[in-house]
Amino acid sequence: MNNFNISVENSNTFPNLDILTIARDNKHALNSPCGGNGTCGKCKVKVVSGREHIEAVNFGPLSKDEIAEGFILACKSKIIPSLPSHPPHPSNSPIEILIPSPTTNLATIPYTENETSEKFETLKKIEPLTKTLFIDVLPPEVGDSQSDIDRLTSRIQKEVGLKKIVYPLSIIQKVATTLRLQDGKVTLRFYENEDEAIHVISIEDGDTSKINFGLAIDIGTTTVAVQLIDLNTKETFTSSSYNQQIECGLDVISRINYAKNPERLQELREKILKTINQLIKNITDTTATINTNNQNISCAVISGNTTMIHLLLALNPEYLRLEPYVPTVYQLPILNAATVGLEINAESPIYFSPAVGSYVGGDITAGVLCTDIVNDADADADEIKLFIDIGTNGEIVAGNKDFLITCACSAGPAFEGGGIKCGMIAINGAIERVEIDTTTAKPTYFTIGNVEAKGICGSGMISLIANLYTSGWLDAGGKLSRSKKSPYININQNGRSAHFILTDSITISEVDIENIIRAKAAIYSALTLLIEQMEITFSEISKVYIAGGFGRSLDIEKGIILGMIPDIAREKYSYIGNSSLQGSAMILLSKEMREKQKKLTNKMTYIDLSSMPSYMNHYSAALFLPHTNFDLFPSLKRNN
Amino acid sequence: MNNFNISVENSNTFPNLDILTIARDNKHALNSPCGGNGTCGKCKVKVVSGREHIEAVNFGPLSKDEIAEGFILACKSKIIPSLPSHPPHPSNSPIEILIPSPTTNLATIPYTENETSEKFETLKKIEPLTKTLFIDVLPPEVGDSQSDIDRLTSRIQKEVGLKKIVYPLSIIQKVATTLRLQDGKVTLRFYENEDEAIHVISIEDGDTSKINFGLAIDIGTTTVAVQLIDLNTKETFTSSSYNQQIECGLDVISRINYAKNPERLQELREKILKTINQLIKNITDTTATINTNNQNISCAVISGNTTMIHLLLALNPEYLRLEPYVPTVYQLPILNAATVGLEINAESPIYFSPAVGSYVGGDITAGVLCTDIVNDADADADEIKLFIDIGTNGEIVAGNKDFLITCACSAGPAFEGGGIKCGMIAINGAIERVEIDTTTAKPTYFTIGNVEAKGICGSGMISLIANLYTSGWLDAGGKLSRSKKSPYININQNGRSAHFILTDSITISEVDIENIIRAKAAIYSALTLLIEQMEITFSEISKVYIAGGFGRSLDIEKGIILGMIPDIAREKYSYIGNSSLQGSAMILLSKEMREKQKKLTNKMTYIDLSSMPSYMNHYSAALFLPHTNFDLFPSLKRNN
Repeated sequence: MNNFNISVENSNTFPNLDILTIARDNKHALNSPCGGNGTCGKCKVKVVSGREHIEAVNFGPLSKDEIAEGFILACKSKIIPSLPSHPPHPSNSPIEILIPSPTTNLATIPYTENETSEKFETLKKIEPLTKTLFIDVLPPEVGDSQSDIDRLTSRIQKEVGLKKIVYPLSIIQKVATTLRLQDGKVTLRFYENEDEAIHVISIEDGDTSKINFGLAIDIGTTTVAVQLIDLNTKETFTSSSYNQQIECGLDVISRINYAKNPERLQELREKILKTINQLIKNITDTTATINTNNQNISCAVISGNTTMIHLLLALNPEYLRLEPYVPTVYQLPILNAATVGLEINAESPIYFSPAVGSYVGGDITAGVLCTDIVNDADADADEIKLFIDIGTNGEIVAGNKDFLITCACSAGPAFEGGGIKCGMIAINGAIERVEIDTTTAKPTYFTIGNVEAKGICGSGMISLIANLYTSGWLDAGGKLSRSKKSPYININQNGRSAHFILTDSITISEVDIENIIRAKAAIYSALTLLIEQMEITFSEISKVYIAGGFGRSLDIEKGIILGMIPDIAREKYSYIGNSSLQGSAMILLSKEMREKQKKLTNKMTYIDLSSMPSYMNHYSAALFLPHTNFDLFPSLKRNN
Repeated sequence: MNNFNISVENSNTFPNLDILTIARDNKHALNSPCGGNGTCGKCKVKVVSGREHIEAVNFGPLSKDEIAEGFILACKSKIIPSLPSHPPHPSNSPIEILIPSPTTNLATIPYTENETSEKFETLKKIEPLTKTLFIDVLPPEVGDSQSDIDRLTSRIQKEVGLKKIVYPLSIIQKVATTLRLQDGKVTLRFYENEDEAIHVISIEDGDTSKINFGLAIDIGTTTVAVQLIDLNTKETFTSSSYNQQIECGLDVISRINYAKNPERLQELREKILKTINQLIKNITDTTATINTNNQNISCAVISGNTTMIHLLLALNPEYLRLEPYVPTVYQLPILNAATVGLEINAESPIYFSPAVGSYVGGDITAGVLCTDIVNDADADADEIKLFIDIGTNGEIVAGNKDFLITCACSAGPAFEGGGIKCGMIAINGAIERVEIDTTTAKPTYFTIGNVEAKGICGSGMISLIANLYTSGWLDAGGKLSRSKKSPYININQNGRSAHFILTDSITISEVDIENIIRAKAAIYSALTLLIEQMEITFSEISKVYIAGGFGRSLDIEKGIILGMIPDIAREKYSYIGNSSLQGSAMILLSKEMREKQKKLTNKMTYIDLSSMPSYMNHYSAALFLPHTNFDLFPSLKRNN
């Protein structure tokens, strides 16, 4: 808990400012996942004195008890200006505000597991973004008027051909000394840009060519994952954590609203950089034995949704949420690490996966690389395949060798634990699967890392809801049973609300369940609309790839029971995990993949589903388990 | 005057450190023009107490009187370590050192005069390094999925053709907001690189295309000149001052010696940046009415000798003075202003004139542009012409349309006032011309800016020595008359030394005269050797261009009398002033000049004269007025 005071004499210095803004301006951290909309209740503060000077515009989700105790929403309360003719009475109490202690800060808990895909493992022709070259540069001879850079350039060209060799000043500064430390034996690191020039980013004395690391980075609205890759051995080390920006809004729209002025935009940029750099440090701290210090990291691929990339680079995101929804940029140039703010070798090239639309970003163009949708040479290249990335945003890609269409929907953060009272992202301690005893509703749960349960993640919620539904403890409308009694279901006095008891401290309310149902309805209705656009049925789809931050596994059957994904032959499905991260890893390692991504990006047509009039009808129809039209889920009918 | 103390108890903490280093480490500024060689005497300090703890290795030029008063050379004195077995006696006096007040710091006096050449005035086809473009970018329409950058790129390509358009992150960050401030009316600044890509360096709302400034910068060892140029009108504003690095050494070798560790190199880099940025500020402060604030300066061309460019960019200069005399780089890439450290628009391209040798730098390849040596189309393009740039280094270029050869010699700083007791660079207050009355030796002098004389510059010394010589007050060996008496000539008691009295405070000693004679001998002997190499005589040269920091004028006749330049038809000579600065200005304004400079640089052959055995003979023979071989100066013979 901490207190802060606002002087009443100065109340006129806060014209129309809400208490959230005043607190932040005074360096008091307050969470505001809804972005100051008064809906999440996370910025609640207690007024200890001076309540008469505060106007609470509304109380949002605060309970009557909380209001009686003096709680207000900081974002929806402001200081009443003193009347000029009415100086504050000296006995007037000053305003004192108590900020409740934050709940455990999950943002700092990393989750480390090595996640690589089959495609990654079978990657042929490794050609990483940054390569090393160990060479021996002859010393200058009397009469040879070549400069050090000219001599070095000729030597490099002997290896790589007559390409242009480009050096940044920081390297030019090191050349003379380094060339003379070990008789001209030096290791260079370099990358080749689109212009086919060789960009030297490091010169080191002796042979360090075997030490070369790169990063694949997936920036999600809720979860951020960093994978360190040994570019020589393909060994990987992964760490993921919350995006620290969630303090400023749970979804992209809240973040865009938060970034309303340059200082706020800068704050968001700093938060995501802090998140990423902390993850890099987590990995290098635990792998120091193999020389993974950050100066040996020489390249990175970053994939993220369009808004996340705007915030990372402090690009004004405002026009992403205003018609006609225009981003600043889809395809960024390669930037160096120092410019981006990554704490690795300063001149390292940072490659950004290209975006396709304001709501279909580089995470998707990287993710598609983990599928066979665009493998033109495959026998089934004519068949239409589907890629669904489920996160705080849901993105869908459908196509075959001839076409690719894509669309996005806002699922909200529920699948990543957001808006769920005991929700969390898929990291150690998250319940990822729940079995329900049909007769007693007794839950049996499994956590990631087999450690004590700290909360429940998306796959855990899907598992729980599907199992409660099939065992008859939850109805199609998302209500817990009122007739059958269970010690694990707690119904409040008037019977209007209920919650399911998973552990002493982890409970799931009907509001939580409703949030998951809304999220799945957003996905299913988007899928339906896309299928309609293609004038096909779900059964014509030959393969469905599901990606997302569900951790190690997602039970496809449960997803179908939930009505999140269509009821088609189970063998058509595969869960491919964090495809944005895995795609980034492949892009880092393979020139072929970088070219393939560019090609598929150019081929993709973006469809704005939200503007279609039938979207709301489809969405409403999907707000049941599995759907209002049970005919769409024939296999479940049979099971019932 | 200021004092500093060294604790004797701690004398063991300064093993082998000289007092100059200890003083500097303690932030006490001491001049050391000779770079710590014990020859200039400028670092002399007075030991107030604790003399017994100091060992003076030598006293260099200090007089006996000074030594008796307690003066030592800081660079050649060190603390005697206490014997471990012999703890310092408590009554031992601590070491107290007095640093004499520096003489007037000329480094801070700028000189402002607009110097442009005829070539600059008649420059055709102005195509500045950075151009502006005022355009009108249509707003995004519903259904148009282009990003802001894509829309802007298409619009630019409509004007410049289908070239690649490159944006740094700082510009990408501004695009969304700026495009929406004045309905898409924006002004861009950009430059075209060798790769033919358009590099955008600025986006501004509205029409600011008429405000565009660039800088021509000449970095000399002694003098630095900055010229601000209105890229629309060609109007120029010039300011010059001492290179603040002179505190650390008067010539390039002393500076290279000073830069022996990375901190010292960084210090030299900071000193030259401070010099340049102060000159930029001088100009923008006095021209603010025409919007010359530093953010409106969008490009610069820098020309300087190879060592100066190394020091500006903190490139290790050590190997420039070690055989085989190899620089880090001859042709730098275009760097941006922030990387270089210039306080102008951060993304501005900085173009460096290419160097040809370790001692023939970009100042020479820029300077040749001010001559007709490489004008292939001229009627006299076959005739051999000569370009001589006289400064602390002397550089010579000879050639015609078929060949160009170049060499350098070390004249020392005398022509720029260095090593001359009352010497100074050619700025306001410098005596630039002296007439001598034949019968009395009474001097009449003229100062730059017609202000009170503060010292004497190179052209003043040339004028004085030549006139003293022709009027018989100075002999061919550089000795003032002992037989003819004049109140302006003061001869010391034993007759061994003498000085000439110009004003109450400005006197010229025989040592000063000797320094000038040495400098002119270096130039003349280099010229002789070069002519020998070409197997021609001076009379076959059709034109001689003299450049240098002599200010507005150099009297060619006096230069011949001095024996600095050959005795050929006077009409073949022209004095072209600071050709490095004027060449830079032309490069800034003309693409044709940039290409011409590249071509002439590639064509130039560098000859290392100092390695030739006959150099010392030629040099010794030139240590007379005008020369030991009077036959080389026939016109003077006739006049005699």
